[in-house]
Amino acid sequence: MSEKSPKKLVGNVMSSKCPSREILDHVTSTWGSLVLVLLIEKTYRFGEMRDQIGGISEKMLTQTLKALERDGFVLRKAYPEIPPRVEYSLTPLGREVAAKVQSLTTWVETHLPKILSQRI
Amino acid sequence: MSEKSPKKLVGNVMSSKCPSREILDHVTSTWGSLVLVLLIEKTYRFGEMRDQIGGISEKMLTQTLKALERDGFVLRKAYPEIPPRVEYSLTPLGREVAAKVQSLTTWVETHLPKILSQRI
Repeated sequence: MSEKSPKKLVGNVMSSKCPSREILDHVTSTWGSLVLVLLIEKTYRFGEMRDQIGGISEKMLTQTLKALERDGFVLRKAYPEIPPRVEYSLTPLGREVAAKVQSLTTWVETHLPKILSQRI
Repeated sequence: MSEKSPKKLVGNVMSSKCPSREILDHVTSTWGSLVLVLLIEKTYRFGEMRDQIGGISEKMLTQTLKALERDGFVLRKAYPEIPPRVEYSLTPLGREVAAKVQSLTTWVETHLPKILSQRI
């Protein structure tokens, strides 16, 4: 048997035990994907995001932002003002993954008429 | 007021009423995304897919394949043999969306070490 060549440690989404599954879920969940795509545009305040993402509740937005912040994709910045101001933006890593998600959402948006017309 | 320029009819994932949301959910769900990525490789039989995708139940695989088939992304081909043989493959449209999903899953897999090391 020849020696194993050194392998770069990477995830495998096909394995149920790989933590990449959890990360994938955060960035592909309905709210996770929409938050990422929205933040490509600009820095947002909480209330503005809630108004832009149709159907999201404050509770779901809070949970989604916390998961994305923990993964290192979203940066939360609180300003010591009265009333308190909190802003959310993408980190460099978040910007990378958001671009991948946007490529997918844009594809779905532009192909929607074709998909609907072909539906069986 | 000038006349509105003709707009191409496209979806808007930020709207809760847009059917693009439903399509996006099908292709980004845990099982939907993994089925699409797996089928890039080759045509699969049901049992093979179940074995390749860690943690998926037969019920979830059936539901996932039906949704993707209805959207026009997956083709189901049944051969009149005994025992019956059923094979699943991507349609041209499915191949397009699967490539977008794979770009995202590959990104997550390769960036996993960095994400985990930075986790707060």
